[in-house]
Amino acid sequence: MLILFEPGVCQVDVATGRLKGATNRYVKTFRDLAGLYRDESAYQALIATRGDDVAYEVTDYKPSANGGDIIIGVTRMEPGKIGDEYFMTRGHIHARPNRPEMYYGEAGVGVMLLESPHGEIRTIEMRARTMCYVPPFWIHRSVNVGLEPLVMTFSYPADAGQDYDVIAKAGGMRTVLSMTGTVDGPQSITPVIQGDTHRL
Amino acid sequence: MLILFEPGVCQVDVATGRLKGATNRYVKTFRDLAGLYRDESAYQALIATRGDDVAYEVTDYKPSANGGDIIIGVTRMEPGKIGDEYFMTRGHIHARPNRPEMYYGEAGVGVMLLESPHGEIRTIEMRARTMCYVPPFWIHRSVNVGLEPLVMTFSYPADAGQDYDVIAKAGGMRTVLSMTGTVDGPQSITPVIQGDTHRL
Repeated sequence: MLILFEPGVCQVDVATGRLKGATNRYVKTFRDLAGLYRDESAYQALIATRGDDVAYEVTDYKPSANGGDIIIGVTRMEPGKIGDEYFMTRGHIHARPNRPEMYYGEAGVGVMLLESPHGEIRTIEMRARTMCYVPPFWIHRSVNVGLEPLVMTFSYPADAGQDYDVIAKAGGMRTVLSMTGTVDGPQSITPVIQGDTHRL
Repeated sequence: MLILFEPGVCQVDVATGRLKGATNRYVKTFRDLAGLYRDESAYQALIATRGDDVAYEVTDYKPSANGGDIIIGVTRMEPGKIGDEYFMTRGHIHARPNRPEMYYGEAGVGVMLLESPHGEIRTIEMRARTMCYVPPFWIHRSVNVGLEPLVMTFSYPADAGQDYDVIAKAGGMRTVLSMTGTVDGPQSITPVIQGDTHRL
């Protein structure tokens, strides 16, 4: 029997970084991000005052988990740094690694940090109206290198799923993005961002 | 062997209604839309002066046609009317009908007109930041009910394909959107749009 879904209508609220009409909300506080940053003492200092603050959140519309369907939504990240690293998401690869994702800049200045299975690195500058296609098999992480919240919309296959442990198991991505620094191990690449937006 | 794609980076130019970095461009002139509008004489009058003008165009980024991949892009439609019908796309259902689509308002005022296999009609008002999920199996058509170009971004499964003949074969969608009118056969539903934007 043909199962018909009703059309979905949502509103992207760029100011709050949320999707009105979302079916799910996913939140990470700073406390949830233990082990993510290189500078443990700077991380502990932040936790002492902002541990339960929301570091980033996702609100999305998920009609199903069916193969061939899509999930659409909004992600919002706080601006800031821990040591010389910008605030970032834990990053993930899709549980079905051959599933891509589209990120679309709404506000703020960010970098989409991608790492291939061969350890190759790509950094893609995200601003309003930038559309980034994350291909299948690439680990991807969002980094807020600006002074304002980073807000992006996204779309990806509904059966993709997320594997968040892949990076932790690998001892972290091989690249961190810091304000300054040269390519060393682990590499730290300063994103080439026009203007001074990433000077805190 | 693992085939890795490179990440894609595009820029949505809302003013021109185009995707910079697109891999494809698809254009429909008014002359291409013969038979689409009820008022044939009004159509012929328009053709006489604007036949080769672009009625609507699509620029998109298509990494592949693989199942599980996605296509992302921008669509731009001229504003205007032919008889009492607003400019509209031919509309389509996906060649793989169980594939959905996401449309996302960028500029202008439009209506996403959907028709189910059972002939049920849904009209969804599209404005900047409105995110519309077109579910699987629904025929869908964009209608520009505003005074400015209607610009939307979109994302859909790369293996969806399009069947543009389904509507023509059915003698047209059962609904047209006109400035005024009551539900008659074919139904004409005036979209409830705040403000006077659709008075030409």
